[in-house]
Amino acid sequence: MKMLILLAAAAALSFPSLAFAQAPVADRAAALRDAALAGDSVAWDFVEGLTTEVGQRQAGTEAEARARDWAVRRLTALGFANVRIEPFEMPVWVRGEERAEIVSPFPQRLVVTALGNSGATPPRGIEAEVVGFDSVAALQAAPDAAVRGRIVFVTHNMQANQDGSGYGPFGAPRRQGPTVASRKGAAAIVVRSIGTDHHRNPHTGAQAFGEGARPIPAGALAIPDAEQLQRILARANAQGRPVRMRLVLTPRYTGRHQSGNVVAEVPGTDPGAGVIVIGGHLDSWDLGTGAVDNAAGVAITVAAAHRIMQAGRPRRTIRVVLFGAEEVGGGGSETHFNLNRGAGNVVLVGESDFGADRVWRVEFSLGAANAALGDRIAALLAPLGIVRGRDAAGAGADLGIWRRLGVAAIDLNQDGTRYFDYHHSPDDTLDKIDPAQLRQNVAAWTAMLAAAADAPEPIVAAPVQPAR
Amino acid sequence: MKMLILLAAAAALSFPSLAFAQAPVADRAAALRDAALAGDSVAWDFVEGLTTEVGQRQAGTEAEARARDWAVRRLTALGFANVRIEPFEMPVWVRGEERAEIVSPFPQRLVVTALGNSGATPPRGIEAEVVGFDSVAALQAAPDAAVRGRIVFVTHNMQANQDGSGYGPFGAPRRQGPTVASRKGAAAIVVRSIGTDHHRNPHTGAQAFGEGARPIPAGALAIPDAEQLQRILARANAQGRPVRMRLVLTPRYTGRHQSGNVVAEVPGTDPGAGVIVIGGHLDSWDLGTGAVDNAAGVAITVAAAHRIMQAGRPRRTIRVVLFGAEEVGGGGSETHFNLNRGAGNVVLVGESDFGADRVWRVEFSLGAANAALGDRIAALLAPLGIVRGRDAAGAGADLGIWRRLGVAAIDLNQDGTRYFDYHHSPDDTLDKIDPAQLRQNVAAWTAMLAAAADAPEPIVAAPVQPAR
Repeated sequence: MKMLILLAAAAALSFPSLAFAQAPVADRAAALRDAALAGDSVAWDFVEGLTTEVGQRQAGTEAEARARDWAVRRLTALGFANVRIEPFEMPVWVRGEERAEIVSPFPQRLVVTALGNSGATPPRGIEAEVVGFDSVAALQAAPDAAVRGRIVFVTHNMQANQDGSGYGPFGAPRRQGPTVASRKGAAAIVVRSIGTDHHRNPHTGAQAFGEGARPIPAGALAIPDAEQLQRILARANAQGRPVRMRLVLTPRYTGRHQSGNVVAEVPGTDPGAGVIVIGGHLDSWDLGTGAVDNAAGVAITVAAAHRIMQAGRPRRTIRVVLFGAEEVGGGGSETHFNLNRGAGNVVLVGESDFGADRVWRVEFSLGAANAALGDRIAALLAPLGIVRGRDAAGAGADLGIWRRLGVAAIDLNQDGTRYFDYHHSPDDTLDKIDPAQLRQNVAAWTAMLAAAADAPEPIVAAPVQPAR
Repeated sequence: MKMLILLAAAAALSFPSLAFAQAPVADRAAALRDAALAGDSVAWDFVEGLTTEVGQRQAGTEAEARARDWAVRRLTALGFANVRIEPFEMPVWVRGEERAEIVSPFPQRLVVTALGNSGATPPRGIEAEVVGFDSVAALQAAPDAAVRGRIVFVTHNMQANQDGSGYGPFGAPRRQGPTVASRKGAAAIVVRSIGTDHHRNPHTGAQAFGEGARPIPAGALAIPDAEQLQRILARANAQGRPVRMRLVLTPRYTGRHQSGNVVAEVPGTDPGAGVIVIGGHLDSWDLGTGAVDNAAGVAITVAAAHRIMQAGRPRRTIRVVLFGAEEVGGGGSETHFNLNRGAGNVVLVGESDFGADRVWRVEFSLGAANAALGDRIAALLAPLGIVRGRDAAGAGADLGIWRRLGVAAIDLNQDGTRYFDYHHSPDDTLDKIDPAQLRQNVAAWTAMLAAAADAPEPIVAAPVQPAR
């Protein structure tokens, strides 16, 4: 409700200022922005339709194929040009049975889900002693003998940050934990879900066993269950009693199957001015309906491009890409890059893949010659409550490859305070999306696209910084 | 955090007032109250220990038996007198496999759990068309032909209320839905969980098939899943397409098994002054660890009685009862009443079974001759932020029988705003308990007990009102 009032206030403040009276492009962008903020329904309808009619759409499965068909129909109906699928093949891992229980000293069930590419237990599971660690570093430092044949438990204390900065460091138990545990001879590993909620919904996510690491069963406990296991371990250890767990995880690989990107375009009037590429990913993890991750990002970028299209032909072509297989690193990004690097001149990329809450910050990696363009975009976004950051824009998992190879990027950073409450969990469903904040996203993307697509000056990139 | 500040302010305000300077019993009660508010750890340790070392404790199962043993050990260690078990037998229903999926037109899984006493599907489930209703009344009004052989879905729109008043009217789909659907020949029923959250955790709960109603499979969908099914039904119906669901629910009865109450006492100095009986229930549903429902209520009443005991022998005996089998109506209340109605003179009852959030209201069913006692208790509770209600106290599911037969009762009503987010769901776990609010409960119960147990006047009951 507070958000609605703030957005209404922002809309009221966004009259054409005197400074902009000389800038018809900016005036037009502001008007498009305000119309999106007041009344966009394309993004909501897209998220609602995709998550209701398809639901989960794990990469490489028939559900993701249905999502592609759905998206092609919807994008065609919305009037986009050159709607097409870019298919590719990938190995597909699917989950099976998932159960964890403390056998002794305090018998009870815990809620678990397998991490991507987890190995499997036998159908009836394994039973072993649990050994707990506060971090991957502590696991790494432990003697192999303390780990061998046991079920490793790694916890962490990730907290919610607006900029999502907890996910990198606190994601280590999921990303590195299984490999480290396997190399030390562990029978299996369970980690505290990489998330910030307190619900009985575990968070899955990708991990890949490193070289020399035999796949072992690797699961994530729901956060209340991880806290429960910590209490059980502390109490049992104080009493000198081992904690024994039975774990059943029976995922399997089903072979190589087709995934694909869905591409749609708003053709520009000036082929020489270059192409702007935006988008998000169409696939989701299998536990929720992928509303927040990432039907929202796809819907926001589709809705913004559609608003530009409805307002008349822009100078630059806008290409919207709905990537396949982002969650599992399945190759959508590379496939798109390889198919399109030679076709036209991509001058700017931007990605939406951080939920559906409001954009709070904009970052640029425009060249020095585009200082005025950056200023114009930042001025258009300020009435939406968006601040200008000091970092360089990098796009994300799907479009970052373009930036790393020298293309300019603009990041519209979303508020991530709630994002890891739902991310990769069964709780990623439509009810988590606030329609007013979704519209603010569409407004921000519409304003940015309007300014960039019709910018009279060439769009040039800042030099690429070496990776930190 | 705000709650902590309010409680600190309440504690600071609770100096012995001039009005109380003449009343040593009230002074002593105020001091005991403030000590509980500032530092009670007995209640937290009880909840933490029971939910960690036992976890779920469904009535009549071996887990509930372990909980009784745990409680006997803990109550004995705390120094209570006459610690004993009141055993009884009951039929036991346990859940089996639980899966629901939309087969067409939009294939996807939904999260479901069986309601208590649900019938079973065959192991591989049933598949049928779904027919949806907004209420039990709408289901009741439908022609049998519209229901026969189908899977009935009943939704509702329960909202969170501080006094928990939504649970009665909006609980009808769970309580009456299965019977009504069965009588109309439905193949099965799924209801929107009786809850107020938006997480993928379904809420179970008791229901009993009425006379002439053959047991049919009866489940509760998680609330996001119920909303999803509503969207699917609306869309499919608009397109003239049936919605088909596959449902697997394989609960079964395991026969008659032992449950029991655990009783402990603080002996009074004056056998003629009567006995005060307080408590909550020890059993829980099986999905969570029963922290909120009802380890908290047991812990609050145990901790308050313990504080009275530690402060010296009270005039009246205080009996604390940890009831078995409350969730399933298994007979703990009746067993206790029948075993104790002839032993001593029960003059006052009070029950804590509404979570762990703060007490906001006190209600009495004291006789007119106890007006001053009611005033003294209300004055002791006011510094905790507790208002005096106008309704008559009725105790609850376990001790209400005493009140209905003419014994006085005091209700310390807890804030139920969050209660139905967790109630009967996997999310009922320790992390949902706010230690500061738990201490406020102990403080309120301690103050009430101190005033009532040492009241110099006889405790007399208000006349019993006819049931509404």
